Amino acid sequence: MKYSSSVLEQAVEALNMLPSIGKKSALRLSLHLLKDDHQKIEQIIKALAALKDDIKICQVCHNYADQEVCDICGSHDRHQKILCVVESVRDVMAIEETNHYKGLYHVLGGVISPLDGIGHDQLNIDSLIQRVEQDGIEEIIMALSPTMDGDTTIFYLSKKLAQFDVKISTIARGVSFGGDLEYADEITLGRSIQSRLPYSLQSGI
Amino acid sequence: MKYSSSVLEQAVEALNMLPSIGKKSALRLSLHLLKDDHQKIEQIIKALAALKDDIKICQVCHNYADQEVCDICGSHDRHQKILCVVESVRDVMAIEETNHYKGLYHVLGGVISPLDGIGHDQLNIDSLIQRVEQDGIEEIIMALSPTMDGDTTIFYLSKKLAQFDVKISTIARGVSFGGDLEYADEITLGRSIQSRLPYSLQSGI
Repeated sequence: MKYSSSVLEQAVEALNMLPSIGKKSALRLSLHLLKDDHQKIEQIIKALAALKDDIKICQVCHNYADQEVCDICGSHDRHQKILCVVESVRDVMAIEETNHYKGLYHVLGGVISPLDGIGHDQLNIDSLIQRVEQDGIEEIIMALSPTMDGDTTIFYLSKKLAQFDVKISTIARGVSFGGDLEYADEITLGRSIQSRLPYSLQSGI
Repeated sequence: MKYSSSVLEQAVEALNMLPSIGKKSALRLSLHLLKDDHQKIEQIIKALAALKDDIKICQVCHNYADQEVCDICGSHDRHQKILCVVESVRDVMAIEETNHYKGLYHVLGGVISPLDGIGHDQLNIDSLIQRVEQDGIEEIIMALSPTMDGDTTIFYLSKKLAQFDVKISTIARGVSFGGDLEYADEITLGRSIQSRLPYSLQSGI
């Protein structure tokens, strides 16, 4: 594209570095910011600067936090003996949204993926072992994505954790709520039948 | 959504102000920036700060520029007597991309739109009249969007410019190149027939 201003071109190139924002979108965003009063640009600059300088990583669970220890790890209302192991910060947010979990978390920072060159030593596994050892964790819920890499990671972790007296569980996999059996893939449907649950009149499940 | 960090939340809210970036996208962008080294954030902050402070509006054609007068208006290689009137800076870029126009531009900054409350006094019309008067412009090409508002603006401008000895033309409207007649709307197809061109064996059009 031919830009009338090098400043505009640089802004487009900078925004174009973001995922899923192409050159045309970056141009549209830049022109939108220019059209508006400068308040929006200032607010974005301020927020990004804070993101760069002020954000911390919780020393316990590796979630993003404002202090050295995040609100969840610091809370006394949560069950201190249950850990939910997740891949990323987004998974913590997704599970928190459900309001169905009141234990603590441990963010691995990824899953073991030989194809992507991610080995066990690049993940927060040592600190997980340490927590299980020191805090007397009773149950670990593996809430990793149901992929080959996720399964590999669960297998590796359960081997590592076998030496401790800790119950390991994985989140249930099956046909999603409201999903049509017809459209579920065979592996999901197969596992869903294998791990069938006794029906209870009380709970309706 | 429940954020583990208020800094992260503010970044999401700031990016969410941008058009077509929802909360989920804003979160994804923020987490992407956090995962990367800080170089990307710094580059974006720098580019946005420059966008806010350093960009200028060309005093002649109202395009964005690095100096008081943009490169196009300052160029001696361009035809100084032809003006192309466009709605926005993006239209200048789109026409420049074609490499089919070597005259100057005039950016209106919008079109007259009573429904959106945009009147002729909010557009760069006075400076257009002034340019026609002072620079001895010979032809004005109205390259506005083929909408009701675009047509209204062309009508208003041609009335205003009737006092000058200037040729006014509009860009051709018709079935797009490679387009199927079957799928063209009736108005476009109708106009396309009305403004049919003599076929020439030399040019193939």
